[in-house]
Amino acid sequence: MSEFSLIARYFTRPTPSAVLGVGDDAALLRVAPGMELAVSTDMLVSGTHFFPDAEPFLLGHKTLAVNLSDLAAMGAVPRWATLALSLPGEDEAWLRAFSSGFFALAESHGVELIGGDTTRGPLNLSVTIMGEVPSGTALRRDGAKPCDDIWVSGALGDAALALAHLQGRVTLDAAQFAACAPALHQPQPRLALGQALRGLASAAIDISDGLLADLGHILERSQVGAEIEFAALPSSAVLRSLPTRDGEAAGSLVASLTPAPSPGGSGELRARCILAGGDDYELCFTAPQARRAEVEQLAQRLTLPLSRIGVIKSAPGCVVCAAEGGEIRLEASGYDHFA
Amino acid sequence: MSEFSLIARYFTRPTPSAVLGVGDDAALLRVAPGMELAVSTDMLVSGTHFFPDAEPFLLGHKTLAVNLSDLAAMGAVPRWATLALSLPGEDEAWLRAFSSGFFALAESHGVELIGGDTTRGPLNLSVTIMGEVPSGTALRRDGAKPCDDIWVSGALGDAALALAHLQGRVTLDAAQFAACAPALHQPQPRLALGQALRGLASAAIDISDGLLADLGHILERSQVGAEIEFAALPSSAVLRSLPTRDGEAAGSLVASLTPAPSPGGSGELRARCILAGGDDYELCFTAPQARRAEVEQLAQRLTLPLSRIGVIKSAPGCVVCAAEGGEIRLEASGYDHFA
Repeated sequence: MSEFSLIARYFTRPTPSAVLGVGDDAALLRVAPGMELAVSTDMLVSGTHFFPDAEPFLLGHKTLAVNLSDLAAMGAVPRWATLALSLPGEDEAWLRAFSSGFFALAESHGVELIGGDTTRGPLNLSVTIMGEVPSGTALRRDGAKPCDDIWVSGALGDAALALAHLQGRVTLDAAQFAACAPALHQPQPRLALGQALRGLASAAIDISDGLLADLGHILERSQVGAEIEFAALPSSAVLRSLPTRDGEAAGSLVASLTPAPSPGGSGELRARCILAGGDDYELCFTAPQARRAEVEQLAQRLTLPLSRIGVIKSAPGCVVCAAEGGEIRLEASGYDHFA
Repeated sequence: MSEFSLIARYFTRPTPSAVLGVGDDAALLRVAPGMELAVSTDMLVSGTHFFPDAEPFLLGHKTLAVNLSDLAAMGAVPRWATLALSLPGEDEAWLRAFSSGFFALAESHGVELIGGDTTRGPLNLSVTIMGEVPSGTALRRDGAKPCDDIWVSGALGDAALALAHLQGRVTLDAAQFAACAPALHQPQPRLALGQALRGLASAAIDISDGLLADLGHILERSQVGAEIEFAALPSSAVLRSLPTRDGEAAGSLVASLTPAPSPGGSGELRARCILAGGDDYELCFTAPQARRAEVEQLAQRLTLPLSRIGVIKSAPGCVVCAAEGGEIRLEASGYDHFA
């Protein structure tokens, strides 16, 4: 199979919304009048972001999902993607499954694959996602204001918990793993939420490196601080029910968490997964208190839990208030490839 | 050094032409009215596209140059790029040199780096380049017509010759290598040419996989054939002067070339480099015969040789006429990562 037949067979589907799709030196796109183009790139590397034997259908889904999540955080409508992939060899079964997972998610969100590159090398998947957002309405990281509410969608920590199980750092039973694995393998980008938050949220980010790390980006760009109520952080039933022990805490997965006063062993893993687990792909956003009812109505309309987890402060720094009183302090707060 | 300080230090420069540049979930761009967005992605992998010890300043140049070349082939004006890179470790000297080479070329063409991703893994460089082209004027591969002239810019084969030397498959003296190495290490994307060819060329492509492979894409997409005069193909003085021997022909570099009648050993390496060498990043384009004088004037204006190498035929296939009479036939015609 040549490089060209590989592209033709697995990565060429109709692109009616492009002027010109796959097959020339570049694709040609027309951005609608009054729209800005939102562009983001994410690269997934075997052994760093996924296990080398990752199920390829799910990997295809996730490769696009993590990129769509960035557009969700901007309030943009996804339109087009390019995919550059480096493959160690040609494995048609793998390619068929990977491309099926990629296109299943793409088509469910109206995304067209308009170009890319295919080469030989260690498995590496790089997507550039492009979407449209009405000019001036994108959700940015720099708009949070003191007294704004802080919100998160869905539940946090399940992906980190599933990863900890797969890495042998915690042992879940089959039902527990089945409950949290989809968060790791098939994250659902919160596109409808992001688009609905235009004109409502003051700042937004998607949670890819862990809540505290990503909220930290909002705080830094907005030059504000935050106070979070740990008890208000949403987590799944499986994470809440987990009997945790210190020895099984997800230490190499997430940053070191130094509770003070110590919350003790119980709940330690849970706290790490929720605050700094990463791979959640939920949205964290801020909105004025006066818009609280609108956010709650939005949660109902989207049938997506939106939890109010804290408040923006003018003083810098992020304080996490423990349920039993006192503050949970962090040494580092999220995943960093080069820390 | 954290991932974020790495990005801040080496990959964040002003982006005045973007609504929002590096540092949010996505960049925001405004495409000018009446313009189409041209988008292309190329991935460079260590050991596949470059030597692991490649000089990082030159690698930074080439990483962007091969992408700019795709926009040149569309007649587009480059505007923005994203860079996703996977690095085996943090080597500040390498990063400084690589980013310097990347930005030196970017700034000389007015390209802004508006986003990307940095992660740990085998060295991999993936660029998505974006440019603007007036609606309906892009140079495509599918517009070649029978009787059109076929043209190429610059000279062919030097990059393949330099690579053959570095791989020990041919031995050049220092002056010869110095003459052809820049073609391999610092290709110059033909952006001014591509833009000037709008409304003049009927089809265009950049030569990355070898003249015959890339011309073949024009022929396939345009549903035509071609006849090429080997003697008309432009090559450098060093390639023309080279005493070639069959045993040193660049066999693993380029596809197998079966001359019939055999042109003999002399010139064999030269023919392989010129016809199927790859990495030239010159433009191959077609234009009506009636526009011949305009193309020649363009060559003078740009001080860039433009050579008329053959003619488009209605019958499919590509015939290469040898200078001594007869036809040079090919088994395969260019580089293919999965052939």
